[in-house]
Amino acid sequence: MFEFSVLATTGRARAGLLRTPHGDLPTPVFAPVGTQATVKTMTPRDLRELGATLVLANTYHLYLRPGGELVARLGGLHRFMGWSGPLLTDSGGYQVFSLKTLRQVDDDGVTFRSHLDGSTHRFTPEKVVAIQEELGPDIAVCLDECASPLDRAYNEQAVARTHAWAARCRASHRRADQALFGIVQGGIFPDLREQSARFITSLDFAGHAIGGLSVGESKEQTYATLDLLDDSLPRDKPRYLMGVGTAQDFFEAVARGVDVFDCVLPTRLARHGAALVKGGRLNLKNAQYAADETPLQEGCGCYTCQAFTRAYLRHLLVANEILGLHLLSLHNLHFLLDLMRRIRASLLDGTFEQLSAQQHVSSDV
Amino acid sequence: MFEFSVLATTGRARAGLLRTPHGDLPTPVFAPVGTQATVKTMTPRDLRELGATLVLANTYHLYLRPGGELVARLGGLHRFMGWSGPLLTDSGGYQVFSLKTLRQVDDDGVTFRSHLDGSTHRFTPEKVVAIQEELGPDIAVCLDECASPLDRAYNEQAVARTHAWAARCRASHRRADQALFGIVQGGIFPDLREQSARFITSLDFAGHAIGGLSVGESKEQTYATLDLLDDSLPRDKPRYLMGVGTAQDFFEAVARGVDVFDCVLPTRLARHGAALVKGGRLNLKNAQYAADETPLQEGCGCYTCQAFTRAYLRHLLVANEILGLHLLSLHNLHFLLDLMRRIRASLLDGTFEQLSAQQHVSSDV
Repeated sequence: MFEFSVLATTGRARAGLLRTPHGDLPTPVFAPVGTQATVKTMTPRDLRELGATLVLANTYHLYLRPGGELVARLGGLHRFMGWSGPLLTDSGGYQVFSLKTLRQVDDDGVTFRSHLDGSTHRFTPEKVVAIQEELGPDIAVCLDECASPLDRAYNEQAVARTHAWAARCRASHRRADQALFGIVQGGIFPDLREQSARFITSLDFAGHAIGGLSVGESKEQTYATLDLLDDSLPRDKPRYLMGVGTAQDFFEAVARGVDVFDCVLPTRLARHGAALVKGGRLNLKNAQYAADETPLQEGCGCYTCQAFTRAYLRHLLVANEILGLHLLSLHNLHFLLDLMRRIRASLLDGTFEQLSAQQHVSSDV
Repeated sequence: MFEFSVLATTGRARAGLLRTPHGDLPTPVFAPVGTQATVKTMTPRDLRELGATLVLANTYHLYLRPGGELVARLGGLHRFMGWSGPLLTDSGGYQVFSLKTLRQVDDDGVTFRSHLDGSTHRFTPEKVVAIQEELGPDIAVCLDECASPLDRAYNEQAVARTHAWAARCRASHRRADQALFGIVQGGIFPDLREQSARFITSLDFAGHAIGGLSVGESKEQTYATLDLLDDSLPRDKPRYLMGVGTAQDFFEAVARGVDVFDCVLPTRLARHGAALVKGGRLNLKNAQYAADETPLQEGCGCYTCQAFTRAYLRHLLVANEILGLHLLSLHNLHFLLDLMRRIRASLLDGTFEQLSAQQHVSSDV
């Protein structure tokens, strides 16, 4: 279980396969985010049609509603949400630390108030493992403290806590049918990142997550940190870059040995009326698309592009029709899932560098 | 074009087939409502999977946004919304008369203010025909005046206007690939209904719509009016009962010779968290469903019931997840479309009375 094989490499980039209880997971892989046990507006069959292989759900949100215990009673998250493929949950740490004024952290854990009703709750490393064992994803992660990436003093403290909590998570984790990933922190500080990688890898996790990136630092700082971690993390275990999901990031991070990605970007952009297209984004609410008979992206194979014009999609968005959000989400997810499939295929057939060079020409999304 | 054949009858109930430019339409038929050129939350392929054969769109809403001219420029409503089957539009009259304080009616037409931005517009019979010719549905209807069904004086006036407007609509309608239906008004007053049926049928429309019912009168009054109209309307043309769509209404109205129905009920109920089930409705937001592992309706063949529990659907609704609205809409539409298919099949094999008797036992929805 959770055997990870590297099938092909180009430099530090690799195509692999991670064995899970819900099927073999080809890597690199992009996981759509299903915060509340649903990728917003998408059915599980929509996701399968898009070729999604891994879905992320949020521990914080599901703990608050409907609760880990209830999900366990109903047969676990896979059965609950009707997704039979591999599932990943985060630790809830990122959401809790985003609450800012609503939380109080100490060495033993973090006390916070629900964004839903203000009620008080407490996450400890053991509690977060227990919730994820109730939810039952294939891959769970440790509770970590997310510091602002540029704050040295805070990162020193956060790394120390993240390490103590990782050890406690590791010790309390029981489910053999669930992989637990440790999370490396340390902001943009090379010595802290190295120290964190050294400690976290010493605990023999099934895989390693890279936290605290893409939260305010520059792209150069992100990539420098990934360069450093590529040397510090063992190559025979999967690496998961949390919360990252633009086309440019895919190429840069895959080139630095990252295997797993998740990001709310495609569904969040859809809610703002934006579509991912080659070389940029379209804001569909712009009047210029009112009579535009072309699809979102010429040549795109997704249902949205096969069946509808920009003019119709704009109409749906302007008229506040939910179908507009669905069709844009579908396209945006296809855009990133398809890109990741092409990246993986290029690693397998040795053309990753060409694909990456083309991407640089067609520019940043 | 628009040839209507009655294939089988049981008493006054009939199974038929209406030829349209977008395919043969088996009747009796229930048309889901796509107010703004989309049946809320449903893709055209979802609708096809559900076996929907006819979709209704709203002239008032599409006139205001995105406008009939734009839809025409984009190739018409079928192409615009990606629905290749038969389409029906209403006249906009019902919506305009629902505006109450925002409209002023005179013998020539009705002036109203947009619910979107307060701008002033005017519908005349000719204008409403022209908009529907721009939209391009297979079936269009005349502008009518919708009076409160119990108000004798108002109905006398409304019938007179509806007749004058019907004649003007008939005279201005040009598209040979579009059927125009006349609308019979008259509230619950037998003499007015008979007078209206006599006048409207004299204009030789392709079919007849029955307006002004299911808007405040009792069920007995609705059915008595349908009884009367069954004798007054020609049997060789389709009859369309506007805005009616409960299971009980289907049986009662089909038994009185009605062929076509439309109603927002299934999608509107979904937005309120309610599911149509045999013998009643479920309010999924009730706490009693929080851990309910059964489907909405045992034995239902729809995707929602095949893939999800009441507990999960309740979670989606409580968490304000759009997917909940989609999955409930899908089930509710399936419920009514499937019922209408069974009604039609029972007419063809001579078991309509048995099916109707079973329905009475399993009670009102």
